[in-house]
Amino acid sequence: MAKFLFIFLALLITASASDWNILSQRSKSGLKISLKNYCESWRLNVELHNIRFFRVVPEECVSYIGKYVTSTQYKVDSERTIEECVVYLSKGCDLKGDGTDAWIFDIDDTLISTVPYYKKNQYGGKKLNLTDLEAWMSKARAPILEHTLRLFNFLKAKGVDIILISARREGLRSATIENLVQVGYHGWTNLILRSPEDEKKGVEQYKADVRRRLVNGGYHIWGIVGDQYSSIQGSPSGRRTFKLPNPMYYVY
Amino acid sequence: MAKFLFIFLALLITASASDWNILSQRSKSGLKISLKNYCESWRLNVELHNIRFFRVVPEECVSYIGKYVTSTQYKVDSERTIEECVVYLSKGCDLKGDGTDAWIFDIDDTLISTVPYYKKNQYGGKKLNLTDLEAWMSKARAPILEHTLRLFNFLKAKGVDIILISARREGLRSATIENLVQVGYHGWTNLILRSPEDEKKGVEQYKADVRRRLVNGGYHIWGIVGDQYSSIQGSPSGRRTFKLPNPMYYVY
Repeated sequence: MAKFLFIFLALLITASASDWNILSQRSKSGLKISLKNYCESWRLNVELHNIRFFRVVPEECVSYIGKYVTSTQYKVDSERTIEECVVYLSKGCDLKGDGTDAWIFDIDDTLISTVPYYKKNQYGGKKLNLTDLEAWMSKARAPILEHTLRLFNFLKAKGVDIILISARREGLRSATIENLVQVGYHGWTNLILRSPEDEKKGVEQYKADVRRRLVNGGYHIWGIVGDQYSSIQGSPSGRRTFKLPNPMYYVY
Repeated sequence: MAKFLFIFLALLITASASDWNILSQRSKSGLKISLKNYCESWRLNVELHNIRFFRVVPEECVSYIGKYVTSTQYKVDSERTIEECVVYLSKGCDLKGDGTDAWIFDIDDTLISTVPYYKKNQYGGKKLNLTDLEAWMSKARAPILEHTLRLFNFLKAKGVDIILISARREGLRSATIENLVQVGYHGWTNLILRSPEDEKKGVEQYKADVRRRLVNGGYHIWGIVGDQYSSIQGSPSGRRTFKLPNPMYYVY
């Protein structure tokens, strides 16, 4: 009950802040909303990229988001994303086969999962502490996302060069390699992490700049898989992009 | 039960067609999926733009999609999308105020709803019959999407020119105007429909070409709202784009 009051209060504040009396409109139209309705619409609009630049998961949705990212549904949603990559590779992709075929993966919540870390940090409901997150990453214990490993191996078998582009910093290189190899990833062509120079630009720009170098070097980027829009947007892009679900944080 | 068998059969066929034995992987990892899991992941991946070019809603998900587009959740999801437009307009937008400010809306399932039509056509589970759909549109009885009317009026009050760009054909102009005015929309600056010439190109190209003319004419396109990626993608775009949910059909 207290939670509901909080939402309505939050909506009221938002409403008056934006000259937009959502609440009275809602009661006028008779639309009653539950906490689940509210949090589900928050999550969908994050995935639709309508909600951007959020720094924390709304407090009242922490429990809902925690349930989602540890649910079968999250797995099924992610598996379906990866399945669509395979459909595209099998039908829409005319690979060159001359060593210029490339596929790009992000790392966190694309190849391996940060859910165990965020579980201890209110599933994104707590403001990010980078030192703390990097300490966790340096332990190299992030679990695998199995569906992505299957795609990774599928690409390798097809002779596609696999390029990993992550916003992790260079200092985490050995821990990152250790973590990836331990859970089963091996045989990528290039692992690109952020240099101090790269940190001066936004993540979207950094990743686009890397892709520019790859394209200038002769690569055809057939696809990009990431859980953040900053991994797949910006120019040049891939011929197709695939967005995995991730409602826990927003990287830009 | 028959529905479940159908899904597993469908998955099996997809799997063997793509060298990707999803089914055996799934049973190996012990992941049991329900019909709801399956249809929810289908819908999310449509909204994420991972699933593209679908011609019909999967038969086994027709009931699920029908429930969604007639649910409170669909309304809450759509209201949230529109709410984010208002947040952006209130905080991230430095309008010129000199008659060059523009906002673009799609029409169907953005300003008004085609759900009553699709209700009679298996909520997208039946292949589109354009003649039939246009006959329904010509009756001018599509109901309002109230949340969008509120944004429409909010923009009008701010002096922003409202441009409607639809893939509806020119022949539907008077019915479209009648429908829009009847449910409460008036005061837009331009209503752009598809000419026979435009029909030769894809919808995304047609809409991007219209925006090119607007930008060349001096307009600043602050935002675009649409329920299809073909309404918001392509160059030039708007400074921000907003995607309303729509799992019933895919326009390209």
